[in-house]
Amino acid sequence: MSFALRPTRSLYAHLTTSNFVQCRTIKKEHTLKSGGWERVIPAFRSVCGEDGVSLGEAVREQHGRDESVHRCRPPDVVVWPRSVEEVSALAKICHHHHLPIIPFGTGTGLEGGVGALKGGVCFSLRNMDRVLDLHQEDFDVSVEPGVTRKGLNSYLRDTGLWFPVDPGADASLCGMAATSASGTNAVRYGTMRENVLNLEVVLADGSIIHTTWLYTSLVTLPGLKQKTSAGYNLTNLFVGSEGTLGVITKTTLRLYGVPEAMVSAVCTFPSVQAAVDSTVQVLQTGVPIARIEFLDDVMIDACNRFNLLSYPVAPTLFLEFHGTEKSLEEQVTVTEEITQANGGSDFSWARDAETRGRLWKARHDAWYAALALRPGCKAYSTDVCVPLSRLPQIIVETKEDLMLNRLTGPIAGHVGDGNFHCIMVMDPNDQDEVIRVHEFTERLARRALALDGTCTGEHGVGLGKRALLREEMGPLAIEVMQGLKTTLDPKNLMNPGKVL
Amino acid sequence: MSFALRPTRSLYAHLTTSNFVQCRTIKKEHTLKSGGWERVIPAFRSVCGEDGVSLGEAVREQHGRDESVHRCRPPDVVVWPRSVEEVSALAKICHHHHLPIIPFGTGTGLEGGVGALKGGVCFSLRNMDRVLDLHQEDFDVSVEPGVTRKGLNSYLRDTGLWFPVDPGADASLCGMAATSASGTNAVRYGTMRENVLNLEVVLADGSIIHTTWLYTSLVTLPGLKQKTSAGYNLTNLFVGSEGTLGVITKTTLRLYGVPEAMVSAVCTFPSVQAAVDSTVQVLQTGVPIARIEFLDDVMIDACNRFNLLSYPVAPTLFLEFHGTEKSLEEQVTVTEEITQANGGSDFSWARDAETRGRLWKARHDAWYAALALRPGCKAYSTDVCVPLSRLPQIIVETKEDLMLNRLTGPIAGHVGDGNFHCIMVMDPNDQDEVIRVHEFTERLARRALALDGTCTGEHGVGLGKRALLREEMGPLAIEVMQGLKTTLDPKNLMNPGKVL
Repeated sequence: MSFALRPTRSLYAHLTTSNFVQCRTIKKEHTLKSGGWERVIPAFRSVCGEDGVSLGEAVREQHGRDESVHRCRPPDVVVWPRSVEEVSALAKICHHHHLPIIPFGTGTGLEGGVGALKGGVCFSLRNMDRVLDLHQEDFDVSVEPGVTRKGLNSYLRDTGLWFPVDPGADASLCGMAATSASGTNAVRYGTMRENVLNLEVVLADGSIIHTTWLYTSLVTLPGLKQKTSAGYNLTNLFVGSEGTLGVITKTTLRLYGVPEAMVSAVCTFPSVQAAVDSTVQVLQTGVPIARIEFLDDVMIDACNRFNLLSYPVAPTLFLEFHGTEKSLEEQVTVTEEITQANGGSDFSWARDAETRGRLWKARHDAWYAALALRPGCKAYSTDVCVPLSRLPQIIVETKEDLMLNRLTGPIAGHVGDGNFHCIMVMDPNDQDEVIRVHEFTERLARRALALDGTCTGEHGVGLGKRALLREEMGPLAIEVMQGLKTTLDPKNLMNPGKVL
Repeated sequence: MSFALRPTRSLYAHLTTSNFVQCRTIKKEHTLKSGGWERVIPAFRSVCGEDGVSLGEAVREQHGRDESVHRCRPPDVVVWPRSVEEVSALAKICHHHHLPIIPFGTGTGLEGGVGALKGGVCFSLRNMDRVLDLHQEDFDVSVEPGVTRKGLNSYLRDTGLWFPVDPGADASLCGMAATSASGTNAVRYGTMRENVLNLEVVLADGSIIHTTWLYTSLVTLPGLKQKTSAGYNLTNLFVGSEGTLGVITKTTLRLYGVPEAMVSAVCTFPSVQAAVDSTVQVLQTGVPIARIEFLDDVMIDACNRFNLLSYPVAPTLFLEFHGTEKSLEEQVTVTEEITQANGGSDFSWARDAETRGRLWKARHDAWYAALALRPGCKAYSTDVCVPLSRLPQIIVETKEDLMLNRLTGPIAGHVGDGNFHCIMVMDPNDQDEVIRVHEFTERLARRALALDGTCTGEHGVGLGKRALLREEMGPLAIEVMQGLKTTLDPKNLMNPGKVL
């Protein structure tokens, strides 16, 4: 196996030191010519009120970055619409004046998707926070962009229903739709692609569409159906489009019954290979496992330190089973047989909600735990995903690559989906380290592509993976994507510079 | 409840008597001007051989119709490419000469999708019949368009894997992808949308794309991944596009482990409401039922006659359970409790493969059984789909409507998906009956729309539902769909006149 250095292209330009510099001086040169804003700002205010528009420096900076390493690119102005009609009216103004529109949910993205590369108007959607049209008997609900994952599940608490997709962060559900997010439960419940039933979208020209139907005479009812073969699938065109095709102002989600029983467990392994082989075998046996998360020794050590835990420092699986009491027994028995055959430890159980909560909090804090390994450093998360059978090989090779290149990159992965993250912790002022991280992430992505994988399983393309997307899809498919973008957004106003 | 006649628009023009007239005189006026074909036909022959091109009248007629009531619209010529390269070369010729391209799989569609409305070239894909790249450990396989559902499952027989999506007909799997087909197993395994992982598509200009990635240096490996958020979701744009955006030349499918145990059962009910209520309750309880099919009294009577069976003539559910022996016990117990509480009969069991096969053959023969009720008549199947909670209401209303209007329309439905079919059997020469069928199908579709449903759950839009699609989606969403079509097929050569 060789890790020959390939010519460094502009793929990882986002990782150059300049990206780590927080913006201190605000962009002076606005998209509008001098005086233009004087006409536009009052128009915005007439739509969403005095309080609904801000030019403040701190506010703009806050809306110019997500949780990633990508540097802050503040918009020229932030607006807070309160309804789809206001989003539409604002979009029409932007369309008329050729102003970029950047949708903003909770800013918890990891690929720089909210940066205002060309200036423009940030649409902060947090004031649209209604849960609408809960249909318990049909297992669906609609939410506005201000509703987060945890918010929805609190709302559902007494209904016996829940929404399982869980990327860790308490993200906006519409934002999760825009990024095609997934997380720890995807192995059982699917990603946003499988769980978004309908979207309301404001297009670049301000027009409002529903991606499945909305019967004109029943405006209060969302257009929802169990299945359809009616025309082109617009829903899945907008899921994962990262704000580049329109602003998602409402999403209808599939809900699930809260399982009768849930139990979590932790199991440690003598090697990475043993842990990953166990995962593959559990899934191939058809166990409908709800969560199966891999943490390597470095990651578990970081989690122990950050959350004051004492798991053995070894390759580890965090598992969770959902079902009836009876089916849980069966699932656990089969899984234990497999892990033990691979040299895994006895399961350490987390049965009650509180203990389970502590366990999963540790997993979801992985990002912060990794950062805490080297105070003052920044983190960048890789996000490759490969077919299940290729997973042992790529994880083993990646661990070797990290060691060879003296990099801190604890691994946490949704291994049930073939998706794993190296959380690259680096000193932004150490130019040599930054370059080694570049080269590592590029090698990792190409290693995934060579194994029939993808450069991004769930974080999206955003800023950071545009060149890799091109490499992954080939020029013709990219041309098709560009054609779709141009059709829906001919002026290139919707979150310009992202994805393509 | 009223069934006031609405003004009959052109929605159901496909049901006028002219549609039942089999084409006897072949279209004389070709798309090409006189002499044009003399240059084009040799070009086609140079691509796919002498045997790969036919102008024969019988051959063209055979390729101008599917299994529906839509009248035969033969193409000008039929070609049989043997590879994606040949499809691409033929498409380039068509593109140059502005000739429509109509992809043809097995001709088992139900909405007239293969009719050559504007003449042109039928691409019969049955000679591309390879099963490629079976990855047992990753549960996926790729197939060319000549591979049918049953053909693939025969191929997989000894692998312990199967492909469950089952529309009844032994359709081409690529054709099923093009129509977004589903069928009796969708309640457990999803439709084609959930089970197509990657597509190879020849676009109108002859270029070949893969909807997920294909690593350029590994041309023999299909681009497959478990999940991705890399760019726009092209796969689901082509799934259900009915040949209007490109020719699907390969599809990568998700496979499933053959369940350890399967058992089928039949249960009769005192009323439609009781049968449908049971379905809704079984699903709401979370039983992972594999099939739950409703047949009304008229349908079961027809099935009894056609298949020499003796089920009680009453509203009936055909059920199937998949799982481990243990989980089957649990599923059956819960389901029996529910059906009995709704006044259902004891289950009549089908345990061995042969008995189960007979049961499901009866269900899948419903179309022919319905036709046999009135020899010499033609059939048209409605295809509405509504949210589960609305299902009892719409089925009860629809039964009343059928009776009030003296129509033969046995009902068979994938009720677990909210999808059901009235198989309208009518005498094409009885103008009055044909008009009553028009009006009925229109009322039914609008009834579904008013209940948050769709006019087509699985048969597609094709010819028959273009106006309803417009009504269902609204003008703006249709405009978006039209924009996508124009982007991918600016000359409108791909199966023109369908869907939009």
